[in-house]
Amino acid sequence: MKENKVIRLKDDIKLNNPIMLVGLPGVGHVGKLVVEHLIEELDAEKIIEIYSPHFPPQVLVNEDSTIKLVNNEIFACKANDTDILILTGDHQSSSTEGHYELGELYLDLAEEIGVSRIYTLGGFPTGQLTHTDGVIGAVNNHDMVEEMEQYGIEFKESEPGGGIVGASGLLLGLSQFRKLDAMCVMGFTSGYLVDPKSAQFLLGVLSKILDIEIDVTPLEERAKEMEKIAAQLAEMEQQQQGQQQQYLPDTVSSDEDLRYIG
Amino acid sequence: MKENKVIRLKDDIKLNNPIMLVGLPGVGHVGKLVVEHLIEELDAEKIIEIYSPHFPPQVLVNEDSTIKLVNNEIFACKANDTDILILTGDHQSSSTEGHYELGELYLDLAEEIGVSRIYTLGGFPTGQLTHTDGVIGAVNNHDMVEEMEQYGIEFKESEPGGGIVGASGLLLGLSQFRKLDAMCVMGFTSGYLVDPKSAQFLLGVLSKILDIEIDVTPLEERAKEMEKIAAQLAEMEQQQQGQQQQYLPDTVSSDEDLRYIG
Amino acid sequence: MKENKVIRLKDDIKLNNPIMLVGLPGVGHVGKLVVEHLIEELDAEKIIEIYSPHFPPQVLVNEDSTIKLVNNEIFACKANDTDILILTGDHQSSSTEGHYELGELYLDLAEEIGVSRIYTLGGFPTGQLTHTDGVIGAVNNHDMVEEMEQYGIEFKESEPGGGIVGASGLLLGLSQFRKLDAMCVMGFTSGYLVDPKSAQFLLGVLSKILDIEIDVTPLEERAKEMEKIAAQLAEMEQQQQGQQQQYLPDTVSSDEDLRYIG
Amino acid sequence: MKENKVIRLKDDIKLNNPIMLVGLPGVGHVGKLVVEHLIEELDAEKIIEIYSPHFPPQVLVNEDSTIKLVNNEIFACKANDTDILILTGDHQSSSTEGHYELGELYLDLAEEIGVSRIYTLGGFPTGQLTHTDGVIGAVNNHDMVEEMEQYGIEFKESEPGGGIVGASGLLLGLSQFRKLDAMCVMGFTSGYLVDPKSAQFLLGVLSKILDIEIDVTPLEERAKEMEKIAAQLAEMEQQQQGQQQQYLPDTVSSDEDLRYIG
Repeated sequence: MKENKVIRLKDDIKLNNPIMLVGLPGVGHVGKLVVEHLIEELDAEKIIEIYSPHFPPQVLVNEDSTIKLVNNEIFACKANDTDILILTGDHQSSSTEGHYELGELYLDLAEEIGVSRIYTLGGFPTGQLTHTDGVIGAVNNHDMVEEMEQYGIEFKESEPGGGIVGASGLLLGLSQFRKLDAMCVMGFTSGYLVDPKSAQFLLGVLSKILDIEIDVTPLEERAKEMEKIAAQLAEMEQQQQGQQQQYLPDTVSSDEDLRYIG
Repeated sequence: MKENKVIRLKDDIKLNNPIMLVGLPGVGHVGKLVVEHLIEELDAEKIIEIYSPHFPPQVLVNEDSTIKLVNNEIFACKANDTDILILTGDHQSSSTEGHYELGELYLDLAEEIGVSRIYTLGGFPTGQLTHTDGVIGAVNNHDMVEEMEQYGIEFKESEPGGGIVGASGLLLGLSQFRKLDAMCVMGFTSGYLVDPKSAQFLLGVLSKILDIEIDVTPLEERAKEMEKIAAQLAEMEQQQQGQQQQYLPDTVSSDEDLRYIG
Repeated sequence: MKENKVIRLKDDIKLNNPIMLVGLPGVGHVGKLVVEHLIEELDAEKIIEIYSPHFPPQVLVNEDSTIKLVNNEIFACKANDTDILILTGDHQSSSTEGHYELGELYLDLAEEIGVSRIYTLGGFPTGQLTHTDGVIGAVNNHDMVEEMEQYGIEFKESEPGGGIVGASGLLLGLSQFRKLDAMCVMGFTSGYLVDPKSAQFLLGVLSKILDIEIDVTPLEERAKEMEKIAAQLAEMEQQQQGQQQQYLPDTVSSDEDLRYIG
Repeated sequence: MKENKVIRLKDDIKLNNPIMLVGLPGVGHVGKLVVEHLIEELDAEKIIEIYSPHFPPQVLVNEDSTIKLVNNEIFACKANDTDILILTGDHQSSSTEGHYELGELYLDLAEEIGVSRIYTLGGFPTGQLTHTDGVIGAVNNHDMVEEMEQYGIEFKESEPGGGIVGASGLLLGLSQFRKLDAMCVMGFTSGYLVDPKSAQFLLGVLSKILDIEIDVTPLEERAKEMEKIAAQLAEMEQQQQGQQQQYLPDTVSSDEDLRYIG
């Protein structure tokens, strides 16, 4: 496989004024948690598989011991007037050049299907273990700001300060060349842990935008478990901060333990 | 050498219903140990050499001070009704993209020779220095599971949890696009040491599958040596675990020492 | 985007005997600070945008929450007899090969517009937190040395000793193949901090070369702030040097803290 | 520069039965020291320059403040019956793939000029700071062994154990495909320091092979300086070994200090 490989699982895809949601692995896995939940709740149908030499050479093992070559996938579902395409996957590109190449591929597919707007979903790292409700946005067309503020999305001057790295940001940039509206919606998250609570809040905002009802109970349960872990970690961190001036190395190593490997 | 270079050492290769075994460097070097042993015991003949700019720029030095450019090689031998092709080598690809490119090349060669099934061989890291007999499998076609369970291969739900990385996994994924049955067979191994004992057990399972008899004595001797080293390391580790709560950094550094560079 | 993308914002660019200034991110951000200041003071007009898969997959967020895909940009302005082109940007290439490819692209554009000389601007790391006024030069044509010494640029034998890494150096090397005069002008800087004071001094030298007047007040204010920080750091460093023989590891870690990520 | 760039400085190169010496940066810089000395002593003429996007994006600064884009270069000189080509350079390839591509390019040039044999020169790391006279060889054609033993070159079974990494080894491997005899000659060296003493000894062996006389005085002087430094380091190391069981981390960090960056 020297080139990306696109497998279309349906002969003709007819969608009504579709928008596209993008939830790939990233900060707090917020975006991926949101779209995985949506795919299940909305009973979305997988329509496209994308394999690429820019993904790691890896297979995952299914419950029945069959394997799945890591990929990115596009799902489709009907929702009121606006149909929804969902892009998710096991990995983002392993290389810088691959990011750009895959980004254009996703946009080619989106345009082919007639997507009129893209929402990339991600996490906004606060560095705080205590959860704060909130969603911050960035757009590739200023016209979207006013509309989106209605749904409770905050727009803060030049935030995030370090920009947006990876597919969530790049798709906004590349869409601009195609005059395709795209927006990145980021839930506040610690940046240290997989964060279903942030995903739950982001999902609430998203269901208002899309005017759909989503049962968030399953996500809520995962969030409660995670919250306990976060509370324990926060407590540990506080204890350590008391000791920080004497035992700096300990604090450093414990911080490491809190981090997940994205 | 800008492209992979395939050198065919025989003009025509006629094999009877061949299967392919793949044993490349990896966890515990289990897969490579198994196929090296098979090549010797079955007196397999080298039929193809594969050189690639995706392998490190390195030559190995032979006993007679001549050199060998690092490569991957395919051997062939006759065994009952089913002839055997064996793919082994000095390295796996240095780059992500190279993994995919070489993977397709191996499958092109396998198809050209008429291979009907591929077994990739590897190690399943247990994290335990104490040896446990056992072999776990993953398949790219569920039909193989029942057949393989007869030979004592275990199939555990979604195991290994982190998927299978490198050629052993990738070949299963890429074979799927060609409707070619492939299976990864992994011997339990610590993950810290070259493991001839795991290779010996895996070889036992394999000889049942292939219905051949293999003298495992040479491997058994290497296994006994390695077992002594592992026992010493396990003892050291136990002593350190007693000290672990006081001296965490020591344990970490000693763990490092147990690791080999794959 | 598999290839670099050049967007020309003006149909025809007519410049009078133009020279090109290059100020990309690098040591002390000296070069970038200088050209950013010039673009503002000279009210330069953006004429070309360059996007590339060799830049990180990243967007920056503007004040109004719109995004900007990271890129390199060329500005133009009129200044006396000699018009000025300015190349600046968010990043240098992420890969070695990309550096060479982008370097040639910049030179193609420069030649197309009729550039007769290139000045790349950068910082010369002294390793000393105390500021020293001074600018050192390197040329790709020895004829420039005498002319440039008039403006107070120093030329020291084989300095910098480690050569010049990145676009600032590479453009001199690649220009040589085109018989295009190019010079690297480096302001003395600690190498640890963003350095507007070094930028201010370099700007003074540059305005003599270009025979233009530049108001350096804004840069001066930033420099004063930075100077305070540097003075504090220098003091800390002195204190630590007194302890250095006893506490080497501390000194090392504090040095790390002084470093910025370029 | 997307492709390698070969600049021929002479229109026609007529050499008498030429052999090629290769001395690129590597272990102890032994190979490079030897060929640099030969170029000067034999008054060799530069005939080819090779530039490549696989070299770092870097220029070096000459004594007169002009710059030189990093490259590899081929020199030629007359020596008795056998003329000598010398390949040297500032860097080896930055990437795995680049190593293979440049390797083939060097061999294309060698074949074009009619080279009948290649000697790559390098260092064999002993891990000992105390100098030992000695040169070890590896060949790509066993016929060379007997001939070379006459000149005092040792051939040890499967040594170096880790193979030969980089251009010195790769050129032997790639030459094999062209039926071109090539040999790697390695001087014993600590592996920690630039080693003119090892270079001096290797040069002695080489002048016997090539039947030429070389004044080694300049190299001898550099060797004496370096020997003093090595003696001091060896002394420090001995002192530290006495303390090793108590203070392991110190020893580790001091070992680091002995290492040079190749």
